[in-house]
Amino acid sequence: METGTSQTMTLSLILLDEPSELFGGVFTQNAFPGAPVILGKERLSRRVTRGVLVNNRIANVCAIRGREKAERILSGLADSIGGEGTDFFSASTGVIGWTLPERAMLDGLHQLKDQLGGDADNLFPVSRGIMTTDAFPKVRSALAGTGMVTGTAKGAGMIEPNMATMLAFILTDVDIPRDTLRRILKRVAGETFNRISIDGDQSTSDMVLLFSSGMVKDADSAVFEESLYSVCNHLAEDLVRNGEGTGHVIRVQVKGAGNPVQAEGIGKAVINSPLVKTAIYGNDPNVGRIIMAVGDYAGNNGIPLVPDRVRILMGEEVIFNRGTFILDREKEKTLSAYLSSCALETENKKFPAHERTVDITLELGLGDGRCEVVGSDLSYQYVRENADYRT
Amino acid sequence: METGTSQTMTLSLILLDEPSELFGGVFTQNAFPGAPVILGKERLSRRVTRGVLVNNRIANVCAIRGREKAERILSGLADSIGGEGTDFFSASTGVIGWTLPERAMLDGLHQLKDQLGGDADNLFPVSRGIMTTDAFPKVRSALAGTGMVTGTAKGAGMIEPNMATMLAFILTDVDIPRDTLRRILKRVAGETFNRISIDGDQSTSDMVLLFSSGMVKDADSAVFEESLYSVCNHLAEDLVRNGEGTGHVIRVQVKGAGNPVQAEGIGKAVINSPLVKTAIYGNDPNVGRIIMAVGDYAGNNGIPLVPDRVRILMGEEVIFNRGTFILDREKEKTLSAYLSSCALETENKKFPAHERTVDITLELGLGDGRCEVVGSDLSYQYVRENADYRT
Repeated sequence: METGTSQTMTLSLILLDEPSELFGGVFTQNAFPGAPVILGKERLSRRVTRGVLVNNRIANVCAIRGREKAERILSGLADSIGGEGTDFFSASTGVIGWTLPERAMLDGLHQLKDQLGGDADNLFPVSRGIMTTDAFPKVRSALAGTGMVTGTAKGAGMIEPNMATMLAFILTDVDIPRDTLRRILKRVAGETFNRISIDGDQSTSDMVLLFSSGMVKDADSAVFEESLYSVCNHLAEDLVRNGEGTGHVIRVQVKGAGNPVQAEGIGKAVINSPLVKTAIYGNDPNVGRIIMAVGDYAGNNGIPLVPDRVRILMGEEVIFNRGTFILDREKEKTLSAYLSSCALETENKKFPAHERTVDITLELGLGDGRCEVVGSDLSYQYVRENADYRT
Repeated sequence: METGTSQTMTLSLILLDEPSELFGGVFTQNAFPGAPVILGKERLSRRVTRGVLVNNRIANVCAIRGREKAERILSGLADSIGGEGTDFFSASTGVIGWTLPERAMLDGLHQLKDQLGGDADNLFPVSRGIMTTDAFPKVRSALAGTGMVTGTAKGAGMIEPNMATMLAFILTDVDIPRDTLRRILKRVAGETFNRISIDGDQSTSDMVLLFSSGMVKDADSAVFEESLYSVCNHLAEDLVRNGEGTGHVIRVQVKGAGNPVQAEGIGKAVINSPLVKTAIYGNDPNVGRIIMAVGDYAGNNGIPLVPDRVRILMGEEVIFNRGTFILDREKEKTLSAYLSSCALETENKKFPAHERTVDITLELGLGDGRCEVVGSDLSYQYVRENADYRT
């Protein structure tokens, strides 16, 4: 694998050493998909791929002739470094509605070519190249038997809302049959990237691409899946923790739901509730808002929740048990101190100072459905970044 | 009808001149309903009612012996002014999780009694009495034939998030049979209060109560429904416009959905999207976020949206047509000026300076389902109010 970046706009390229049959992707469900998403889904049916070209600034969504432009740029790439345009995926992140500067991008491809080969097998240049307002590059790796899984990601809904895009690229040398690889990728993405939520807004451009060189043979697919899960789970949490707007990372564990879908719905209802998010930002143990969010979702989705069977913890503290709150001034002080201890700096952040999370545990007493979801709080900085982006 | 308020905590009472059989209520769907909601639903099956007692500061939700306390306070009220405790509704708004100060409230009832009779047939004292952080009292009236419908409301999800409660009380003299009255109330509440959304958070305590004296006979129920709709629709919009956090009121008209439920879902997805809300707060015509929100909801709810059939307007400007954006620098300037012209003062607000809304029209081209929803933007002031409430 080789990588390169160009300074015009920023173009980044992940180029595989050899065309590979072992690749897969998962894409946004948004009904207005960007041109790279439409192209990417088609590319999945091709025999081989050679890699992915990424640009920032403009997401290429519902722009005039957006698809044709993306295809011409990939053809230009192939002319420059070999293969066909259809051998490459395209990924774009940035403003929705604007059109790609095709001429400038074709020019940028030449710079990109000159940089190739300098830093093989190192994802850091790409992880920096795809950064926009990211506070730090995100790369995670895990061993998979005698092989390796490594990945990079950028952005995420509200954390990097200007870009409105979550992109992740995963590389491995483990030889897993294409169908198995794709099945595993879908399952793992569903349990990691799909379980983070900053604001419930799903972008038009989200994509996760996985490429394997297939060099490490006779792999155990369960071992590979575990490694892929580890990489994706860490990257997903990195996405939440990153971003100037995030003051606390919130982890909600739902247990005892009727099924996993209920568990995920309730967990996301809590991390998407602006009232819960702002209270946590303010280190305010206003835990009534947690049951408001749980009860709102349950009541409006036909989940037969019985308050008398519910138990809720924040950190190690039981705050609700058998239909009533367990709260007094002393406990509220303890909870407030706990929230403060989990706070991240929201201004001038580089790498995060710690990896602590605000842990909320919901025991629903309905069945054995479980799910863990991770989200962020809602801060002034979040509003500022999103209100002042283009003005 | 008589009204009174007391300064301890603030108790407000709406006391009907005579016990009436003509009353109805709609209540939150939240699975953790407050004690007043549980009691209120039971009260609906009683033959008559004499009115409603309202307190602020504490919402009486899942508090220890919360229901018993509410019942003892209503009994105390009946001892003081006549009737039985079961003749009264209870309504509470405030912090979730804390318990009612029963002793102080019982003492407060005496002051309340002394004030009764001073200001009959005027809802303004009550509309002020139930205010908390409301910027202005909200009363709306409409003629209904020779009769009258008048109502007051307070709070709303995120506008008055500290209170986490929307309360509305409607009075009329129109004689409509109880069953008809309740059917109409449910329909009208569904088309008015249930179509505003500040943050998608439904409180544990929301309630709308309607009382009729039945003095104006031979009423046309269609005329009554129209008047009730007018009162409730204005009150609902007042709730959104009120509140220090609201910088713009956003009205989304959805046309051409497959059915009204789809239309409402898509409309609410737009007004609940933090990315759309923050852009509007910043007067930033980042209209790509609108299609992101529409496409997110459609894609994840199986709505077969075809971008080529979609047309979107902001104000009078077409911003998206047949699959592509219609945007240039000039149009973005026009849109930004339009957003600025709809802005409300977010600080030190009293009565709003105007009743303008940011109008977004979505024409989906799927069928003839329509819906109109109203929401607010997302501002610094919103975060501040919710983060700093109790600390």
